[in-house]
Amino acid sequence: MNENEYLVKGFKASAVAAGFKNENDLDMALIFSEKEAAAAGVFTTNKVKAAPVIISHKHIQNGKARAIIANAGNANACTGRTGLDDASRTAEIVAGELGIRSNEVLVASTGVIGLPLNMDLILGAVPGLVGGLSREGIHRAARAIMTTDSFHKVSRYDSRAGGQSYRIVGISKGAGMIMPNMATMLSFAMTDIRIDSQDLKRVLLSSVETTFNRITVDGDTSTNDMVLVMANGMAGNSVLSESDLKGFENGLRHVMGELARMMVEDGEGATKLIPVKIKGARNPSDAINAARTVANSSLVKTAFYGQDPNWGRVMAALGRADIVMHEESVDIWVDDVQIVAGGLGKGAEAEKNAAKIMAEKEFTLTIDLNQGEYEDRIVTCDLTHEYITINANYRT
Amino acid sequence: MNENEYLVKGFKASAVAAGFKNENDLDMALIFSEKEAAAAGVFTTNKVKAAPVIISHKHIQNGKARAIIANAGNANACTGRTGLDDASRTAEIVAGELGIRSNEVLVASTGVIGLPLNMDLILGAVPGLVGGLSREGIHRAARAIMTTDSFHKVSRYDSRAGGQSYRIVGISKGAGMIMPNMATMLSFAMTDIRIDSQDLKRVLLSSVETTFNRITVDGDTSTNDMVLVMANGMAGNSVLSESDLKGFENGLRHVMGELARMMVEDGEGATKLIPVKIKGARNPSDAINAARTVANSSLVKTAFYGQDPNWGRVMAALGRADIVMHEESVDIWVDDVQIVAGGLGKGAEAEKNAAKIMAEKEFTLTIDLNQGEYEDRIVTCDLTHEYITINANYRT
Repeated sequence: MNENEYLVKGFKASAVAAGFKNENDLDMALIFSEKEAAAAGVFTTNKVKAAPVIISHKHIQNGKARAIIANAGNANACTGRTGLDDASRTAEIVAGELGIRSNEVLVASTGVIGLPLNMDLILGAVPGLVGGLSREGIHRAARAIMTTDSFHKVSRYDSRAGGQSYRIVGISKGAGMIMPNMATMLSFAMTDIRIDSQDLKRVLLSSVETTFNRITVDGDTSTNDMVLVMANGMAGNSVLSESDLKGFENGLRHVMGELARMMVEDGEGATKLIPVKIKGARNPSDAINAARTVANSSLVKTAFYGQDPNWGRVMAALGRADIVMHEESVDIWVDDVQIVAGGLGKGAEAEKNAAKIMAEKEFTLTIDLNQGEYEDRIVTCDLTHEYITINANYRT
Repeated sequence: MNENEYLVKGFKASAVAAGFKNENDLDMALIFSEKEAAAAGVFTTNKVKAAPVIISHKHIQNGKARAIIANAGNANACTGRTGLDDASRTAEIVAGELGIRSNEVLVASTGVIGLPLNMDLILGAVPGLVGGLSREGIHRAARAIMTTDSFHKVSRYDSRAGGQSYRIVGISKGAGMIMPNMATMLSFAMTDIRIDSQDLKRVLLSSVETTFNRITVDGDTSTNDMVLVMANGMAGNSVLSESDLKGFENGLRHVMGELARMMVEDGEGATKLIPVKIKGARNPSDAINAARTVANSSLVKTAFYGQDPNWGRVMAALGRADIVMHEESVDIWVDDVQIVAGGLGKGAEAEKNAAKIMAEKEFTLTIDLNQGEYEDRIVTCDLTHEYITINANYRT
């Protein structure tokens, strides 16, 4: 991959091995915008919020930011007053070294819950992070925020708006952990488009809703989830028209969609990626509830792993979803092979063909409720032995 | 175990190998009351209901029954009109052979979803079932309804009411399957107490609420779940006083509590049994919601398997539960070892001691929310490699 394709005007990044992970693994990342950037964030809905979530949420209130400092290996969650002080102080240290204000620094952490952050590691790392900032640093930053991710996740999008070309580059880490702790997702996007911070927030929310909020690995939500975007305006475009805004929204959705997909692909122990698609729902809420319940069912996910077109489990999951259910009108497909028609199985031949498709690394489960016009989808993965192994390991 | 201790006046049972399971495994059971019995049932809340659930629900409306016919190996679920006809016809065949009315027969099935019931097997089996009825047959009946259960589940309770001694005997099958299909729970209880059918229903509902509704294996609910109780009055007791009724309720709760506990112990792949106990909730709904969310979390359950006192996952589960959460007031114990105080970890020594306890086959996770006076508990099991193996197997 050509590093130049991931440069965004006015943004630099760096990463170092601060000592939160083993040995010389990269575990701290810094992203810096030369100019003040419009910034927006989406934070975990979990009522137990990690300290960096609380601090970043506060710092981003004014719609502006200059830097993101992230560490992997310690979540700084369930750490009480000390944790909040540590997150604030991290922002201050970074701000001091960069010569900016501390409320221009957003803080993100992922890793072990309940351990105090080792501030000596932070203090030791920040000068190197600031000194190492470079336009090409984004891939190293993406590697530094990994935990048990098996590959680093970067996506980009190029387009034009307001008379200028602009770029969006995003990175994220998926559902993984160094030691068995909360799966945590972090995603940071940077763009040189000039955009009003209110518009940026609206576009971010709508992008997250159809991307990161449409995936699941194990149905557990984290204390540390955080999606941040900074737009520094250095593309020099004029004020965005409605259609430019629409274009930018498509772009951000493209980047976040790619990252979200990579996160499921790289979900803990996952061997298969399965979009669960609901059609024919009588309203949007039935569509998403049906998709979510099927996509999160342990029995459905183990059947995916077993390459078993076990549609009875899908019907049973639909039956406990918060939807109006008409069993007799349900049709189900694995890719283009129909296995259920009108709530009844299509027989052994159909299931044999479906099982063949399920041997692939990716297939779509489509469920038509035949009650209306609404659709939705959740991208999920299978539930495997390896998921258990990853999550049952002792913390040593 | 002494067979005589499980005799209930006026009840007989039998079991045969009808051919729904492999080779000569028992797979059909019949329970018969010589006299008309007061009867009550609790049925799955899943909106996809198996045919026998629908038929039994209809037959029990009048609060009376004489017989329960059950098969394992085919759930008769998602089988449409044919399935309903088959369940009705099964009741008719049994009624004909027993010389009773078909609406006095309750029907239960467990096994593969979506396959038509082979009525030839039913027709072939019923004469043997009726001919084989004996007072000692209940253990064989308990074995016949097993699927992947590793042991058959029987419980009993003796007491006195209305001047007479009476007995309650219950059987159940747990979360298991012959081939990878819906885990299904069935439980049947018989007693010789004389009790009004309205009282029986009330007592059943309250007993189920604190027993079967307080366990979880994988959070998936089934299309076939059914709890039935028949009381034939042959103890000859006089009308039950309030305190007699209370005593009977304790007894039924005892029997169902034991059966429920055995079901978790024998949950698919389970190696540990863990009551998750919530204390100090501000209302009953917070207590049960907190218990359920923690007890169903895949990450918490894999940590149990890993014998890892990973309280961060417990906090994160509480944080997404539908409760008011005050992180800073949460205390957590593994048996009598406190690992969290005021939302913060008690440190490595406490966790080491907790890990030692978690090596046992059973321990209690206690969470004090310190917000009020309400308590509840859900008994859960660990999530293991074996669960994946059982549920990912191909249907062959």
